[in-house]
Amino acid sequence: MSSLFKNLRIHQVFGANTDVGKTILTTALVRASASKDVPVHYLKPVSTGPMQDADDRHIECFAGPYRDNVHTACLFRFDEPVSPHLSVLLAGQKRNREVTAPTDAEFVTAVAQHIEKSAFRFPGPAHMYVETAGGVHSPTLSGTTQVDAYRPLFLPTILIGDSQLGGISTTISSYESLLLRGYIIDLVLLFHDAYYRNYEYLIPYFAERGIRVLSLDLPHKRLPDENEEQKAMKGYYERLAPELKKEGNIYDAVDHLDDCHARRLTELESMPRRSLDTFWWPFVQHGLVPSEADVNVIDSASQDFFSIYNGKRAPSPFATSASPTSSGPTSLLEPQFDSSASWWTQALGHAHPSLTTAAARAAGRYGHVMFPQATHAPALRLGETLVHRGPGAGWASRAFFSDDGSTGMEVALKMALRAYAVRHAGEMGGRRRKDLGILGMRESYHGDTIGAMDACEEGVYTCEWHEAKGFWLDAPTVSNVKGRILVTLPSAIIKTVEGTDAADMTIGSLKEAYDVKTRLHTPLADIYRRFIDRTLTNLRSNGGPTLAALALEPLVMGAGGMLFVDPLFQRVLIDTVRGADPRHAPGEWSGLPVIFDEVFAGLYRLGVRSAGPLLGVHPDISVHAKILTGGLVPLSVTLASESIFRAFQSESKLDALLHGHSYTAYPVGCEVANETLKIVEKMAEGEAWDASRARWGAATSGAEKAKQASAWSFWDPAFVDKLARLEVVGEVTTLGTVLAFKIQDDVDGYRSNSAQKLLESMRLGMASEQTSAAPGGAPFGINYRTLGNVAYFMLSLNTSEAVIHAVQDRILQTLQKKPSAL
Amino acid sequence: MSSLFKNLRIHQVFGANTDVGKTILTTALVRASASKDVPVHYLKPVSTGPMQDADDRHIECFAGPYRDNVHTACLFRFDEPVSPHLSVLLAGQKRNREVTAPTDAEFVTAVAQHIEKSAFRFPGPAHMYVETAGGVHSPTLSGTTQVDAYRPLFLPTILIGDSQLGGISTTISSYESLLLRGYIIDLVLLFHDAYYRNYEYLIPYFAERGIRVLSLDLPHKRLPDENEEQKAMKGYYERLAPELKKEGNIYDAVDHLDDCHARRLTELESMPRRSLDTFWWPFVQHGLVPSEADVNVIDSASQDFFSIYNGKRAPSPFATSASPTSSGPTSLLEPQFDSSASWWTQALGHAHPSLTTAAARAAGRYGHVMFPQATHAPALRLGETLVHRGPGAGWASRAFFSDDGSTGMEVALKMALRAYAVRHAGEMGGRRRKDLGILGMRESYHGDTIGAMDACEEGVYTCEWHEAKGFWLDAPTVSNVKGRILVTLPSAIIKTVEGTDAADMTIGSLKEAYDVKTRLHTPLADIYRRFIDRTLTNLRSNGGPTLAALALEPLVMGAGGMLFVDPLFQRVLIDTVRGADPRHAPGEWSGLPVIFDEVFAGLYRLGVRSAGPLLGVHPDISVHAKILTGGLVPLSVTLASESIFRAFQSESKLDALLHGHSYTAYPVGCEVANETLKIVEKMAEGEAWDASRARWGAATSGAEKAKQASAWSFWDPAFVDKLARLEVVGEVTTLGTVLAFKIQDDVDGYRSNSAQKLLESMRLGMASEQTSAAPGGAPFGINYRTLGNVAYFMLSLNTSEAVIHAVQDRILQTLQKKPSAL
Repeated sequence: MSSLFKNLRIHQVFGANTDVGKTILTTALVRASASKDVPVHYLKPVSTGPMQDADDRHIECFAGPYRDNVHTACLFRFDEPVSPHLSVLLAGQKRNREVTAPTDAEFVTAVAQHIEKSAFRFPGPAHMYVETAGGVHSPTLSGTTQVDAYRPLFLPTILIGDSQLGGISTTISSYESLLLRGYIIDLVLLFHDAYYRNYEYLIPYFAERGIRVLSLDLPHKRLPDENEEQKAMKGYYERLAPELKKEGNIYDAVDHLDDCHARRLTELESMPRRSLDTFWWPFVQHGLVPSEADVNVIDSASQDFFSIYNGKRAPSPFATSASPTSSGPTSLLEPQFDSSASWWTQALGHAHPSLTTAAARAAGRYGHVMFPQATHAPALRLGETLVHRGPGAGWASRAFFSDDGSTGMEVALKMALRAYAVRHAGEMGGRRRKDLGILGMRESYHGDTIGAMDACEEGVYTCEWHEAKGFWLDAPTVSNVKGRILVTLPSAIIKTVEGTDAADMTIGSLKEAYDVKTRLHTPLADIYRRFIDRTLTNLRSNGGPTLAALALEPLVMGAGGMLFVDPLFQRVLIDTVRGADPRHAPGEWSGLPVIFDEVFAGLYRLGVRSAGPLLGVHPDISVHAKILTGGLVPLSVTLASESIFRAFQSESKLDALLHGHSYTAYPVGCEVANETLKIVEKMAEGEAWDASRARWGAATSGAEKAKQASAWSFWDPAFVDKLARLEVVGEVTTLGTVLAFKIQDDVDGYRSNSAQKLLESMRLGMASEQTSAAPGGAPFGINYRTLGNVAYFMLSLNTSEAVIHAVQDRILQTLQKKPSAL
Repeated sequence: MSSLFKNLRIHQVFGANTDVGKTILTTALVRASASKDVPVHYLKPVSTGPMQDADDRHIECFAGPYRDNVHTACLFRFDEPVSPHLSVLLAGQKRNREVTAPTDAEFVTAVAQHIEKSAFRFPGPAHMYVETAGGVHSPTLSGTTQVDAYRPLFLPTILIGDSQLGGISTTISSYESLLLRGYIIDLVLLFHDAYYRNYEYLIPYFAERGIRVLSLDLPHKRLPDENEEQKAMKGYYERLAPELKKEGNIYDAVDHLDDCHARRLTELESMPRRSLDTFWWPFVQHGLVPSEADVNVIDSASQDFFSIYNGKRAPSPFATSASPTSSGPTSLLEPQFDSSASWWTQALGHAHPSLTTAAARAAGRYGHVMFPQATHAPALRLGETLVHRGPGAGWASRAFFSDDGSTGMEVALKMALRAYAVRHAGEMGGRRRKDLGILGMRESYHGDTIGAMDACEEGVYTCEWHEAKGFWLDAPTVSNVKGRILVTLPSAIIKTVEGTDAADMTIGSLKEAYDVKTRLHTPLADIYRRFIDRTLTNLRSNGGPTLAALALEPLVMGAGGMLFVDPLFQRVLIDTVRGADPRHAPGEWSGLPVIFDEVFAGLYRLGVRSAGPLLGVHPDISVHAKILTGGLVPLSVTLASESIFRAFQSESKLDALLHGHSYTAYPVGCEVANETLKIVEKMAEGEAWDASRARWGAATSGAEKAKQASAWSFWDPAFVDKLARLEVVGEVTTLGTVLAFKIQDDVDGYRSNSAQKLLESMRLGMASEQTSAAPGGAPFGINYRTLGNVAYFMLSLNTSEAVIHAVQDRILQTLQKKPSAL
């Protein structure tokens, strides 16, 4: 990830095009830096042999009196007798058979390690210029274009502008390509061409965008005689960066870059204090975050990693393992694995370029446009995808947009309550509509707005106004306890159903546990039926609330503690509720409207698009968010069947679903969701997940795969088994990207800090002789979240095998140590 | 705005750079199109004289056998003997004194009118190519770069790629600059350079992005002899587009463009039906939207206008006024003024490039990163701006982020309830915390989630679960009735306070009405005090709810019917509530926590940053959204004083504010908000609004202006006065960007359709001899929203004077007609 050193100020140099004077202007920068009597590193990561030698000679020669301060390097050098750009391009096209092209990960690691070695070699103040090849989007050796390939390093950037005809356009376009990757752009440097005067236009243009532009004199036309040329160039550089009087734009440039670096350090240094003073964080007890070291300063993010500032905390004793010794200067930024997938939102890694461009495309075409009685392409495409080819396939007919899972659930509740109230209008008797209740599972969680909270029991999350509206059943769970897959029955079932005395029932495997169709015919299904029937009968006879809807988080209850509910129980519950009232017409909802809250579980978080096919039943209403937008921007969609929709149709405006938020169906959110679903569905259909699926015995081809009705996990079964057998671990569960385990603890639930304490050491990078799996290879910490005594770890849908293994190893290593030893 | 004709297929041609063969490849396209025996229009909007003649000759000559089908044109022609690009550039730099540069608006209108004339001239199938100059970001005559200048026209695009060294980069960067403006890109066309082979890389690159790339043979090197060259070029074009066998890439290109055009028409044509079949719109009674003509198909948006598809409705008899006769072909897209500012969100116009790039920058740097106990630059900057220099200046200490106004209000309510409950923990007696109530104003509206709804009375918007928690006072209002500024007292005040018999009280002017400080000493202030005191005393003695917070929409209650509440009443209410319980320590909230719901009213929607300075009091909690993100993406911030914040601080996690959404403080939202506030505050400080301010007697400089405590409006006072005196208008009110008026009607409130009916004809464009104020000059309709018998119109903060006048004229014209005549 990003390398940032206190003393070593690094800039990468991108060009607006080839032939814009990148090497000449970088040479001038090197010379001006070197004249300040600091070591100057010039790194050209990729170059062809002859040219690189020439570049090196050029740099060293024209550094002139300061050449001893200059240290040049090249990491990937090729002997093709063509320009560096074309050599790279040819290699990228895999036509240059002699070139062994490094992967993007290898490339980034090589550059990061070179930087670290340079910082170690001269620990005092020093400068480094990393010169790229060609234009910003010229392909690297792997074929990825440079802006994307260099992105994990997140080095501050100098853009060499184009001073020639058309150069205003190429300079601004290149700037925008850098901007789309979030780069910090400290300086635009270009030749002072007196005829085209592009600088005149560009100076105010970039000033408005907070970026300094400096122009430098054009060199003479190349002279035919090599010695003359050499002499003339010396004169040129001496004019640009005079030895005696250190004045002029090139010195201003170097001072400005020093300034940018210093300001960046000051900014990072100040962020923890300022954040503690200004933010009111969600779900955070500020009284327990007393110090600046507790604030996670995220400087940028890439793939599954944050790049975090560590200047405010004592460095890990092992954090600098990649340096030659541990006493050298260490990067102030380090990678941190985002193991809660940023509150369960990430699906494709942070700052995925396809999602950024999707957002930009929609913003550029529409901004936001109002939605009622209107339509626009991104919303229509998303609605149709979700209804017809997504989680709504086979049952849904309508898509209602809102902003987050919580508002999406409020919409779902309003739909269900109305549908029930309309059908039972004549039978409400003395019951008030506001006393209609929800049937659900204990430990449910549907979001933080008060209405969504009222669909759950009172608990730690609920506020003053909370009023639990409904009834909640204790849920049996599935987990791996010391290597055995068990269904654990709650005491309510044991008490209610005679003859049920074993709380834990062994089941063969994860695959069998989720084979709901087969299990429907087991004795346990009967136990569930009897439990549910009796409980609901008792509720009615005891004057319980009128239940108007069944609301479930299918398969896993997330915020309630990552509880993996026995899917058989949920299926039996739905069947029971629907079977109890067969008065409905065909195609109508039956018994109670059934809501699937798939905000957390849906869209492949658990390896399947939706829980429906796995459970073997569809809901009447479902809610989707989080992964829906790939982890970039908020958006939620509530899907409904035609039968639910019709409950709101009439000739009166007042019967409509009078709910909507200002940015309902905003084009940026919809377009990002469309792009996410496109990428995710391609992975689901293709081979990307087949190795993992195979390990868990799930089909990797054919109708069985297409049905998406198998349970599997991205986590390795052998690892899960090993984890389950650790002494400190109570039970383990996994599906798709999610791994959760309970720490053996006396205090239960959300109040417990045991998981938090036990895992504390994972936040820091860990010693290793090898490069880590993080981009750049530096040791990485893990940013994990706990729910009381439950720890959970989550992956994106495209997390690499290497990263998964590294995280698995860290988990095992951490838990195998005694907590006291940490 | 965008011109789209059934028969005339139009593409604009952008170049990845100068000298990439734009004219040659466009010529080839023209020739291939012309060979299909359709009229082909070649438009070069800006060109220098000699070169343009050359281009024309080139085009006509090499169209060869088809030259009679080709029609060339140039709109802005200059005689500078330099390349078109440099001529443009020089003019852009205002150094070319002989050039009278058109404004962006004039430029767009000229192009749009040329297109319309061309469509009229050949109403049958025809093609048009609009060739731009230089690269995508080359400056136009006004200095705006081309991608932005052409954007309101929103023409589908052909990008001429760069086949030379570095051309992969310039092509992709140019594509990304087009993408940031939302352009439809149908084709990338470039030379087939066998050495660099850029096409090999670009074909799969763009295929992944759904864009076709075609390469065409390079021409020979220019020959010294003009006749030889002419002959050789003829041969070249004949090879590219052979006369006999119409095969090859250039014919594929033309077929593909035809195809794109046909697919676009089919897509637009199908969108109303598909939308009716898939969407569940917010606040829409689907039973009342029976036909495709009722669906507003928004193809793109720019400034304050949607570009809407009109192919599904009978065209307005006047819609084609700009055509030579009304019987010619009309554009299938027409401008529509977004007069609800897309549900009150727009502040800077749709698709503002600065907001798009802000979104892209943050997406590229972070994606989304999780927020609890973390920090990132966009969130920190936004939090500090709002707290210290924004609406929180002088009282707030904390910023809490959520997703929309409704969730922001739920957060505010949770804060206020807790603060009250903690302070009164010992005195709650038998009262349950869930029965704590809100004191507010009748017709309040705080968003659609159930908790926010419970802070309001039952009304048309409330759902099954609604339970009004609190007490709401009838509010006196300010309005212009037939030219007089009146305060209208509700009957509750007249009944409660003896000696108050006049319901309407004349006040001098808008300025005086909002001079709260002076009015505090008037008899009316006393009337308000007595009314509030007595009402609250009665409430307590009648066993009313325990009131725990005061929640207000300051100045205007939006969704409740654009009611302009007398600011004096709100001030007296706040003073009364705070004065009632002086037990608090200094710096603590007093009496009840006071919440300002400034979601609608704040951030200059009403001409002032916040209502606080105008009312002369600060809240303890305030909520901001809508304009906060300039009308691009959802985001909300709840600000709180330190005293409110402390109510949640302890050593226990369970006392924290346990509320948060997945995308809390997402970087894209925060960065867009930062950019919006930067632009908006610059306007507020500068002279942008001074002309309007002066018309209403508000200060235009000095401390008085900086204080932001004056009432003023973007709407013209003379217009408002005229409007108020119309027979059908009951009363008018305006502040900042908002204009609202009541239609005289028997049915009151939200149930009424009178405003909707009366204004119906405004949806269509209206006949005029002149070009309209919409970009491109076509007649524009107005997309307005009504709240029952209230019609309202809203501007952005940068709506042009021309557009304001045009909208004012349309309003007067429409209302002066008898409804029956429409």
